[in-house]
Amino acid sequence: MSPVLRPPVMLTEVVMRDGLQIEPTILSTDVKVALLDRISDLGFSRIEATSFVSVRAVPALADAEEVFARIRRRPGTTYVALAMTPRGAGRAIKAGVDEIAVVVSASEAHNNANAGRSIDDSFAGFAAVADMSRAANTALSGAISMTFGCPLEGDIPAARVFGLIERFLATGIQDISLADTTGMAYPTQVAALCDEVLRRYPEARFGLHLHDTRGLGLANALAGLQSGIVRFDACIGGLGGCPFAPGASGNVCTEDLVHMLELMGHETGIDLDALLETRRAVEQAVGHPLEGHVGVAGPRLRPFACTTDDAAPQIVGS
Amino acid sequence: MSPVLRPPVMLTEVVMRDGLQIEPTILSTDVKVALLDRISDLGFSRIEATSFVSVRAVPALADAEEVFARIRRRPGTTYVALAMTPRGAGRAIKAGVDEIAVVVSASEAHNNANAGRSIDDSFAGFAAVADMSRAANTALSGAISMTFGCPLEGDIPAARVFGLIERFLATGIQDISLADTTGMAYPTQVAALCDEVLRRYPEARFGLHLHDTRGLGLANALAGLQSGIVRFDACIGGLGGCPFAPGASGNVCTEDLVHMLELMGHETGIDLDALLETRRAVEQAVGHPLEGHVGVAGPRLRPFACTTDDAAPQIVGS
Repeated sequence: MSPVLRPPVMLTEVVMRDGLQIEPTILSTDVKVALLDRISDLGFSRIEATSFVSVRAVPALADAEEVFARIRRRPGTTYVALAMTPRGAGRAIKAGVDEIAVVVSASEAHNNANAGRSIDDSFAGFAAVADMSRAANTALSGAISMTFGCPLEGDIPAARVFGLIERFLATGIQDISLADTTGMAYPTQVAALCDEVLRRYPEARFGLHLHDTRGLGLANALAGLQSGIVRFDACIGGLGGCPFAPGASGNVCTEDLVHMLELMGHETGIDLDALLETRRAVEQAVGHPLEGHVGVAGPRLRPFACTTDDAAPQIVGS
Repeated sequence: MSPVLRPPVMLTEVVMRDGLQIEPTILSTDVKVALLDRISDLGFSRIEATSFVSVRAVPALADAEEVFARIRRRPGTTYVALAMTPRGAGRAIKAGVDEIAVVVSASEAHNNANAGRSIDDSFAGFAAVADMSRAANTALSGAISMTFGCPLEGDIPAARVFGLIERFLATGIQDISLADTTGMAYPTQVAALCDEVLRRYPEARFGLHLHDTRGLGLANALAGLQSGIVRFDACIGGLGGCPFAPGASGNVCTEDLVHMLELMGHETGIDLDALLETRRAVEQAVGHPLEGHVGVAGPRLRPFACTTDDAAPQIVGS
């Protein structure tokens, strides 16, 4: 029961990209900039600020250039934008992003649906993006969607994930996010895959992008941590989600993940109280209740609805 | 990534006791009996069917005798009722329960609020209950509420939990449930305590009663499993809850726990599809949406809203 020193964890806040892209309400640029500036103050290592993708496909993020022009950049935070193609990467570089994130799916069917091209064609584009980002001195990372299963293709063989990692490494991309896009991962699967990729590819830096579609977000994060993963994406209020499961939970919730990590002794650099206030601002902006538990119940030793002066309600049981 | 044989897990379904006791709608005895008979068919090792406690304190379970007289007992399932006092235990024995569960809190303040007496007085009663249950050949188990923290007292020293375990053992109670009554447990804490109690008390059989108040139910179950715990309480639809955090999640959700356990290779004996149907029956009976994720999104490889014929929606991202 004595405290154990555990490695710090690097969190990437994705609410302004993954969280907003399927929200029915499109936020104004003013609101986005104000939220991003608040999020910047929280101390994240990385913030996914927007996407430079087809405006038709993601109208919610059509103002990517303006957002990047107007946000305040906190020293020590890397401001990331997603791009799928050289055209998007060109826009991102011009807008002055710190890092471009490209995405490929481990499922050919999903890559076709999501990116509108084959996996091979995606990588052909990534080679050009890599040249552009090197020339512009912009960092580049890659994500593998559907790493832990795909609603269209079912289980994804680990060998296919290894193949995609190797293609990223060959393209000069060492920062690789394993994404559980529709919440199909489970802890032993996460542990086995993370153990294996960390062993096979010591030159890469792996992160986990987890969803909570089936309630396993934090359990999978725990399994990843135990394997040695120290980079996680998370989303304020658990926004975002899986269009295959309407009504289901979205990304793993930042507040709940920070709460767990800090209790376990992993420093995140995030102020949980300020994060919970920012959650309320996000909730107000999107106009509907958010997911997540700590935002409702309060942190472990200071639950929202109880002070030590309260009489304890009788519950008669365990 | 190859399948590993993992130990089977014994689940106790608590929805008809812990789940119903704070529901605003009191179910009729007919509905309770029908639900319990459906739950019996699911294959649980144990079912907490009701409580023999003060009718004034828990009016929702005032029909405990009639419920026990009318339910169908499935061979292989242990039907448990909670009792706090010799008087309640006498009623439970007369009603023919298979097992009495007594509850003490690791927090003196909470024990006073919950049981209306001191921890010492609770144990004085348990000694009488133990005599009665031995004479009646009725099994007896014990639960320790607030094992992982108390909203009134804060952190609970492990030494206090050890002391309560020793008092249970001295009373002849070997089946001991460590209860996270208000969802204050976190994975490294669960692992450390479970490791230690399993080492110290090999003669005891420990279970975990987890709540999802702060979203950590499944992560804590994972930590417990990794320590060697193979008995868990769970509650259909995550009903029940923590009166200290109104609106917060309740018990760890049975559907989500079964889904995780089965994916990890732990047999539970529970038919997940039938469980999800029973969830709908419980939801209809209580008249409001339940907690839990698999009940909304569907199991991992067969999400409710997607068939392989569906066009994949475009989400543009990870």
